[in-house]
Amino acid sequence: MAEPLGVGLVGCGTVGTGVARLLLEQPDRLARRAGRPLDLCRVAVRHPEKPREVALPPGVVTADPAAVIADPRVDVVVELIGGTTVARRVVLDALAAGKHVVTANKALLAEAGGEVFEAARAAGRTVCFEAAVAGGVPIIRALGESLAANQVTAIQGILNGTSNFILTSMAERGMSYPAALAEAQRLGYAEADPTLDVDGSDAAHKLAVLAQIAFGVSARPEQIERRGIDTLDAQDIRFAGELGYTIKLLAEAWTGESTTGGREVALHVAPVLLRRTDLLAQVRGAFNAISVHGDVVGETLYQGPGAGMMPTASSVVADLIDLAVGRAQATFAAARLWSREGKGFVVEPVERVRSRFYLRLTVADRPGVLADITRILADEGISISSVVQHEAGEGATEPVPLVILTHTAETGRFRAALRKMATLSAVSAPPVSYAMGD
Amino acid sequence: MAEPLGVGLVGCGTVGTGVARLLLEQPDRLARRAGRPLDLCRVAVRHPEKPREVALPPGVVTADPAAVIADPRVDVVVELIGGTTVARRVVLDALAAGKHVVTANKALLAEAGGEVFEAARAAGRTVCFEAAVAGGVPIIRALGESLAANQVTAIQGILNGTSNFILTSMAERGMSYPAALAEAQRLGYAEADPTLDVDGSDAAHKLAVLAQIAFGVSARPEQIERRGIDTLDAQDIRFAGELGYTIKLLAEAWTGESTTGGREVALHVAPVLLRRTDLLAQVRGAFNAISVHGDVVGETLYQGPGAGMMPTASSVVADLIDLAVGRAQATFAAARLWSREGKGFVVEPVERVRSRFYLRLTVADRPGVLADITRILADEGISISSVVQHEAGEGATEPVPLVILTHTAETGRFRAALRKMATLSAVSAPPVSYAMGD
Ligand SMILES: NC(=O)c1ccc[n+]([C@@H]2O[C@H](COP(=O)([O-])OP(=O)(O)OC[C@H]3O[C@@H](n4cnc5c(N)ncnc54)[C@H](OP(=O)(O)O)[C@@H]3O)[C@@H](O)[C@H]2O)c1
Ligand SMILES: NC(=O)c1ccc[n+]([C@@H]2O[C@H](COP(=O)([O-])OP(=O)(O)OC[C@H]3O[C@@H](n4cnc5c(N)ncnc54)[C@H](OP(=O)(O)O)[C@@H]3O)[C@@H](O)[C@H]2O)c1
Repeated sequence: MAEPLGVGLVGCGTVGTGVARLLLEQPDRLARRAGRPLDLCRVAVRHPEKPREVALPPGVVTADPAAVIADPRVDVVVELIGGTTVARRVVLDALAAGKHVVTANKALLAEAGGEVFEAARAAGRTVCFEAAVAGGVPIIRALGESLAANQVTAIQGILNGTSNFILTSMAERGMSYPAALAEAQRLGYAEADPTLDVDGSDAAHKLAVLAQIAFGVSARPEQIERRGIDTLDAQDIRFAGELGYTIKLLAEAWTGESTTGGREVALHVAPVLLRRTDLLAQVRGAFNAISVHGDVVGETLYQGPGAGMMPTASSVVADLIDLAVGRAQATFAAARLWSREGKGFVVEPVERVRSRFYLRLTVADRPGVLADITRILADEGISISSVVQHEAGEGATEPVPLVILTHTAETGRFRAALRKMATLSAVSAPPVSYAMGD
Repeated sequence: MAEPLGVGLVGCGTVGTGVARLLLEQPDRLARRAGRPLDLCRVAVRHPEKPREVALPPGVVTADPAAVIADPRVDVVVELIGGTTVARRVVLDALAAGKHVVTANKALLAEAGGEVFEAARAAGRTVCFEAAVAGGVPIIRALGESLAANQVTAIQGILNGTSNFILTSMAERGMSYPAALAEAQRLGYAEADPTLDVDGSDAAHKLAVLAQIAFGVSARPEQIERRGIDTLDAQDIRFAGELGYTIKLLAEAWTGESTTGGREVALHVAPVLLRRTDLLAQVRGAFNAISVHGDVVGETLYQGPGAGMMPTASSVVADLIDLAVGRAQATFAAARLWSREGKGFVVEPVERVRSRFYLRLTVADRPGVLADITRILADEGISISSVVQHEAGEGATEPVPLVILTHTAETGRFRAALRKMATLSAVSAPPVSYAMGD
């Protein structure tokens, strides 16, 4: 059998522990699949003395990432620290030292993908990152290899398992957002500080990575409009449910022709109403799923665990096998990701995206209100698909919720209508609205 | 840019036309993705004069597959004839002539995979076949590359779009099997002779291919128990629906420890009752979907169009790009499919597989019948989860349907019970039963 592939781990937390376990517990299987042994040579962590759920061989652990990078037996550095400071240094130093890199770090790719990939090309080395988006779901290979004959035209993904877990609890068990979040934290589906998961940032990082592969664009954070589930009101989930819809936190990319004839892509992360029969609406708990439209194949869909020790390790080790086999190097060279070439797309705001909308207004229950609101929508060319106003008690003076579903409209015009509605005296709270997936 | 990859097509029917269109209409895109042009050099068909939905360049078409194989510009022969006679010869001759092969032919792989792959290894050439299973769904890459760190433990797939289309029409529109088949034929979803699609043979071929990748077994046709949808009675779809289930034609593989401590895999194709909330139950029309359980990642699911001109061409051309990039050769060398090595699995009959069962009996509506039947089940250690007997009219003498759902039982024991029930005088038609997916 050929020379072993020397593996150095930097970071041995949730994912790193899974990777170390696989490498140590399944050496024969992995050697067979890779055509050569995958040897775990060095592991850097912050606290070398901390007990871990894996028995690392003596002498392997160090507190110094540089020792992993400098180890001559190490061919590949697996970066599993997270974040964009130390991780960035580790990745760049590893490439400069002539090592391949495998990473699960979407934040790093979203923020410094260009720098990292230029460094890799300069060093003639390869960067793999299957685990960075949707954990155990092989969406990176799907976009980069399986769909290579296609131009992707749209992506819809459930890319944050924490948010999807919380939304599932809210929808199926009528929980409030704070209660569902607390439970997710108790069960280990949400971090102590869940901000990046629930505010849409994590999903936006992942969408930026997918958009790079599919459209060749390096989207800056402010180019991905994002809205999380942290402001979602349980009553909107309930109203959506009554109308046959489920609310999911989606990361979406749409393409179109720009007004100047070029190609453009719009990106956002937001809670979206999906028809209950939609496949993505069925994705429950911490699972991830991505629907991809290609101009040749049509729609294909990929689903699986979006995070977790072993699912994510499965993807990291698949990358190691690809490097051992030589597949990863071929893909890396051909794909030219985060290069200046691009695929001719520019990123545009979602204003021109057409969609249906869900709108909830809190209105005084008095004559003429509905007429005012429908007039505002009509003035923007937006027609109404259905209206639900739950009956208030006779002579009630409390404002009541009014729920409207629109037909397809341009996002910008819908937002213009929203701004006008907010000024109506009968509208007593800021209008709440979500795009719909159908 | 590097040398072009010369492509020779043998067969230009549904799939071949799609491949030719892609190669001729998207040369720039494909050259970018492949790092070199994909040149369509020669095309063999049976009737060269027949008009086609693609404008082939003059001088390209021939009636002689040997001319394609012998053409020195051709690096890859794409076999899209189908069947196992001419196609087998074309593939073996192409390999012997030093050409790589791309094929969408599951029948050929299922029946002569060993011969084809040995010939490829002997010639130092590569065989790719992403399109052979589930058309546009990249299940071959998923099993062979993305899940390479896993031992697959179970597969459940909707692998025949024709059958799924017919089942969807029967379930959603209450159609009979003959009416749904006729409509599928009219709309082009079923061939004039649909036998191989509806009797489970096509799905069994595909399952054999998946089982080779996942378990390293070369299953002989008789080792895959198969039952199609052609004997399915609309009333079983209706009863299943009333109980919250959808019937799907599934291709399934289960693994377990054999009684001698080795590893075994059981394979079957059959209509199976899936809970309506199961993801595979939601797969409608001509779509395909495959759920794969891996021991590291857990469950991942892949879905998309299972056939059709462009979806299938998308997969064929992805294989061509993989060959151009060099990825396919690396995968082929590492995977050693249809070699004598195997992965230590042996194929066993489904008798020992445990599952729940749906059972419909046609019984005389008289006292004691249910007692006899439940006694037979109890004697085989099978307990009942629910019983539905629709009320017969007072004094009715017609036999009535009795539907029973069991708890989990061994298939062999359930079948033993069935044989005993068939001998009861009160049971007036052969018992009808299906496995359940939960
Ligand atoms: N968790 C998931 O399910 C998941 C899924 C997909 C992708 N990811 C990504 O995978 C990466 C790792 O995530 P994780 O959940 O495994 O993180 P984690 O559990 O927090 O582990 C981080 C590891 O990095 C080590 N570390 C931190 N700073 C270091 C430094 N300066 N030098 C050396 N080691 C250092 C820590 O050492 P100590 O153990 O000694 O503290 C720890 O072992 C992140 O980019 C994340 O976004 C995670
Ligand atoms: N159709 C799908 O959606 C689909 C999906 C997945 C996989 N597949 C597989 O793809 C393969 C092709 O299917 P298809 O539907 O494209 O078949 P098809 O429409 O029947 O086309 C067969 C082609 O082969 C040519 N041909 C037949 N015998 C020949 C011979 N002796 N020499 C030269 N050419 C010959 C025919 O020539 P003429 O045109 O001159 O008659 C025709 O162009 C099959 O293995 C099938 O299982 C098909």
